[in-house]
This record gives sequence, structure tokens and C-alpha cells, in this order.
Amino acid sequence: MVDIRTRDVFATMRPDLQLVQARLEEAVRIDYPGVDDLVLDLVRAGGKRLRPLILLLAGRAFTDNRETLVTAGAGVELLHTASLVHDDTVDRAGMRRGRPTLNSVLPSGAVILLGDFLFAQSAMLAAATNSPRVVSIFASTLADICDGQLREIFCANRLDQTRDDYERRIFGKTASLFAGSAEMGAIIGKAPDNAVQALRQYGSDVGMAFQIVDDVLDLREDASHLGKPAGHDLTQGTVTLPTIIYASDLTQASGAARRLESVVSGEVTEPAAVKSVVEEIRGSGALEAAMDEAIRFAARSKAYVSVAPEPEVRDMLEQVADIICQRSA
Amino acid sequence: MVDIRTRDVFATMRPDLQLVQARLEEAVRIDYPGVDDLVLDLVRAGGKRLRPLILLLAGRAFTDNRETLVTAGAGVELLHTASLVHDDTVDRAGMRRGRPTLNSVLPSGAVILLGDFLFAQSAMLAAATNSPRVVSIFASTLADICDGQLREIFCANRLDQTRDDYERRIFGKTASLFAGSAEMGAIIGKAPDNAVQALRQYGSDVGMAFQIVDDVLDLREDASHLGKPAGHDLTQGTVTLPTIIYASDLTQASGAARRLESVVSGEVTEPAAVKSVVEEIRGSGALEAAMDEAIRFAARSKAYVSVAPEPEVRDMLEQVADIICQRSA
Repeated sequence: MVDIRTRDVFATMRPDLQLVQARLEEAVRIDYPGVDDLVLDLVRAGGKRLRPLILLLAGRAFTDNRETLVTAGAGVELLHTASLVHDDTVDRAGMRRGRPTLNSVLPSGAVILLGDFLFAQSAMLAAATNSPRVVSIFASTLADICDGQLREIFCANRLDQTRDDYERRIFGKTASLFAGSAEMGAIIGKAPDNAVQALRQYGSDVGMAFQIVDDVLDLREDASHLGKPAGHDLTQGTVTLPTIIYASDLTQASGAARRLESVVSGEVTEPAAVKSVVEEIRGSGALEAAMDEAIRFAARSKAYVSVAPEPEVRDMLEQVADIICQRSA
Repeated sequence: MVDIRTRDVFATMRPDLQLVQARLEEAVRIDYPGVDDLVLDLVRAGGKRLRPLILLLAGRAFTDNRETLVTAGAGVELLHTASLVHDDTVDRAGMRRGRPTLNSVLPSGAVILLGDFLFAQSAMLAAATNSPRVVSIFASTLADICDGQLREIFCANRLDQTRDDYERRIFGKTASLFAGSAEMGAIIGKAPDNAVQALRQYGSDVGMAFQIVDDVLDLREDASHLGKPAGHDLTQGTVTLPTIIYASDLTQASGAARRLESVVSGEVTEPAAVKSVVEEIRGSGALEAAMDEAIRFAARSKAYVSVAPEPEVRDMLEQVADIICQRSA
């Protein structure tokens, strides 16, 4: 039953998503031999295109005019891609989605500038909507993303973080673009203001659920599944919801607390030590508790879809919330 | 006489440039202790604010409404600043304008993201003009800048570059933002289309002159004057106009040609070897020939200022072209 619905939203939206993909590939053309193929690979590599999907759905709730929605959809996907390119440079990540990152094949200076080039192209797509409101959301979303990523760096290696700190950080890093995508779609669809705000909130909740699931998967899945080692966040000193939940139940200065602290602080980096902390977190029930939180965000997001006049669109928006909680990598 | 005129444009425009500075400082507020001061220092550090100056002048030629011009002026200056932050990261530069770069005090990941944050804030300023045309020029200028910088990286260490390659590269890297600044100013001023295009061409020529002068200074001036060692471009493998002119007069496979090739290719990096190549270039007359080219661009730019209705504005635009050729660091 779930599978049938899951096929539905992607099947229904496939033609629009293909237009987004075509616009995307057109936008990233760059005339240096060698580099053009790398960039094309990058925008073909993947993902589920959830951000343009949400933008398209939020717009489709109010308009049949696909042209501008497709342009903006390509813009948000490219903004996301550009941000991943810089993020991989910051993390010095060698792999992403099981493939080598640009980082691992180009000098880091070239990767920074290629990321900027992709930001520029995404901004050109936003500008091509001819809507100052869309451009303004686009720019402030980029600011939110950077804010979240900077907080991640500046809060790294510290266990004294609250859930509020975590939520603020992942809103910036991830949920802001889901929120902005839904909002831009609704604005392009000329939705009334209350619907624009409701769909923004829908996107925000779905995005929060998405990042929490991501953070759970980082601890739950094995290297082969994720394309990176389990507990990667911990080794970067990034404290996520499962770790916050796990830490809150530990007795201060206990052996487990000391083991966690030594890995998060970066004092201990041996894979075996990281693995045993990952296993302690897995055994504590913290992953399930964090997943419950993701499910709560996804459930809350569904309360906002009632602003969409068409039942089919409402159903598809709900499917997206479900898909996010069901993904396994 | 020249000095009196030079004082004039900055004196006349000082109130507007102060508004730009205030807008700039407001835009970069960021609430991490320590980082906020670094970013504020960065936008206070300097430069002559030539890009906002040109934008303000091009707008003033047609309108008295300063509000939007000041916003866009802060936007172009911040775009320039963001681009310098990434450029310094790419070059691993430790100093800029005689001060330590962000790079030398923060981890490189944080610097990349701070650069992105500044790009985001500059895009928000562009969006705040509420003009889709301005936003579109802004975004395509960012793409041009990245294109120029990428070309610099991909053409590095190669002597087989023509003047056309060089001009295309410096148009992207530098002149595009001068051109875009003049164009945005004229558009905000609601100038007629022919004047918008003429002022864009003015900005482009002035920007080309600016970069050629910069490239001459890199070879002409000593470390104390520039805040970086003379011949820095050569050690980066960056081939600029004076080097192209110098190389074109060398006999193939001569000693001088081999010495130049070995430094440009990165094969030889000893400061003494770089210094002796710098001195050979200085002695060849190539710096003067390149400077003549800068002066030709500046002279050509003046042909376009006649589209500005007010004599005072025309005079100030001409002063800017002169100032660029007179600067010594």
C-alpha cells in the first residue's frame, strides 16, 4: 500500500522533474574540457530531488503554469548542490552518494570556485523567475544555510549542546531550503498569504524530519550503505539528536560518558573506539527516540497541507512526508 | 591640478559612500562571538570603494533617489569582499592590504562558509533593490567572476597564453563587476537603454585598466608597498599582460626564456630565481608597455561618459578613470 503511494508522487511528478533536470544540466554548462563532465556528473548523480519536488507541489496546488516553477525548482536543486560541494570541501569528504567528490579529483581552490560558480548559476535561475519575492527568499535561504553550517563548525567537539541548539542548527543547514522551496512554489503559484506561510511551515517540518533521519542513519547504517563510515558525524565532532538524547541519560563521569566525551572532543580518533561508542548509542534506544522525533515533525507537517485546494496535491505532499521517514540511506 | 580633481570625486561622494559603508556593516552582522569582529574588520579594512562609487555615479547621472543606489552599492562591495575571501583561501594568502586574512586566523572550512555567508548577504542587498534586472546582472556578474577565477586556475603555469586569453580572464575576474556596477547604477537611475549600455562599457574599460595596473604593480612594487612579495603572480603561475609582452619579445630557447618558463611552470620556486626574472621583466620595458595598455582602456572609457547629462557627473566618472591609472598600490 505504502509502495503504491510512494510510486504515485514520483510517477505523477516525473515529467516535471525531468524538465527540472534538463534546466539544471543547461545551467551548469561550463567550457573547460574535463571540468564540464565533472560538473554534469555531479548534477546527474542524484538524490531524490525532494527540494524541487516540494517546490513544484506547492506551486501546483495553485497554478498550472509550470514554466516558472521548473526554473525555480532547478534553482533550489542547484543551490543545494553548490552547498554540498562546499560542505564536502569543508569536511574534506572523499565520497558522496558512493562516488568520489570533486574534492578528490580537483585542487581544493578549483572546488571552492566551482561551488561559487554553481551558486551563481542557481542565483541566475532564481533571478529568471522575475519575482523579487522569490529572489529575496532564495538569498535569505542561502544565508540561513551558511548560518547553520557555521554553527556546526563553531559548536563542533562540544557535548554541552541543547536540543534547541541542535534544532536551530539543522533548521539552517537543511530545513531552511525545504521551507524556502515550499514558500517559493506557493508564491510562484500566487497562493494567498496564509497558504504561503502554511506551506513554508510544511517545508520546514519536513526538512527537520529529513535531517533528523539523516543523523539517525549516520549512526545506524554501515559504510557500504551510506558510502561513508558509520559514526562519521561523531568523528567530525558533530553532535546530533541521537547523541544529545543518549548523553542526557548518562551518569556524569561514568565510563560511557567519558568514552563519548573523548570521541566527540576529538581526543580519541581510533576507528575501534568510535565504533564502540556508536554501538553504545545504538544499544541505548536513542536512535529510536530520535526517529520518533522525526516522525513527530513529519506528522506535524501534514497538518499544513489542508491549505492546498486539490486533494491529489494534498495527498502527494503527505506522501513526501512519509517517504522522508521511510528512507534508509 | 590632478590632485584637486582627485579630491573632488571622493569629497563630493563621501556622504553617499558613508551610507554604503553603514549599510555594509549592518548586512554582515553575525552572532558568533569573535567572528562578528573579524567580519566587521574585513568590511572596514578598506579599499577605495571604487565599485560602489561607480554604481553611485552611474545612478546619480539620472536620478537623485539615493536609497536604492546605496543598497545596491553595498551589494557590489560585499560581492567583491566575498570573492576576495574565497580568492585568499584559494591562494592560501596570509596577507591582504597589509593585514592578516581570515584564512590565517580561522580554519579553512569556516572561511569558505563565511565567504558563502557574505555572498548570501550581498545577494540579499541585490534582492532588496526589488529590481529583477539588477538581480539578474548581479547573478551573472558572480558567474563571470567565477569564470575568470577558474580560468586563472586552469591556465596557471602555462606560458602559451595570448592577450585575448588574458583579457577574457581579467574581464571575468575584475572588469565584469565594474561593468555590472555601472550597469546596475544606470538601471536603478532609470537611464535609457543606450545610456545603460554605454555606462556598462565605461565600467568594463575602467575595470580592465584597473586589473592591468594591478598586474603591473605586482611586478613593479616591493613587498612593503603591496603587503605581499613582488612577483607574487609569477610564483602562483599566473601569467599577466607584462609577462605576455615580455615573453613575446624573447628568443625561443634563450636563457631568459628558459628562466621565465621555469618560474611560470612552477619548476623553480626559489625567491632569488623569481626575483631575477622579475628584474628581467622590469628591465625589458614590458611594465611600461602594459601600463600604456591600461591608459588606453582608461582613455577609451571616457568616450562613454558623454551619455551622462550632468557635466559634474561626467567629470567625476572621468576622474575615476584617471585615479585608476595613477594608483601605486
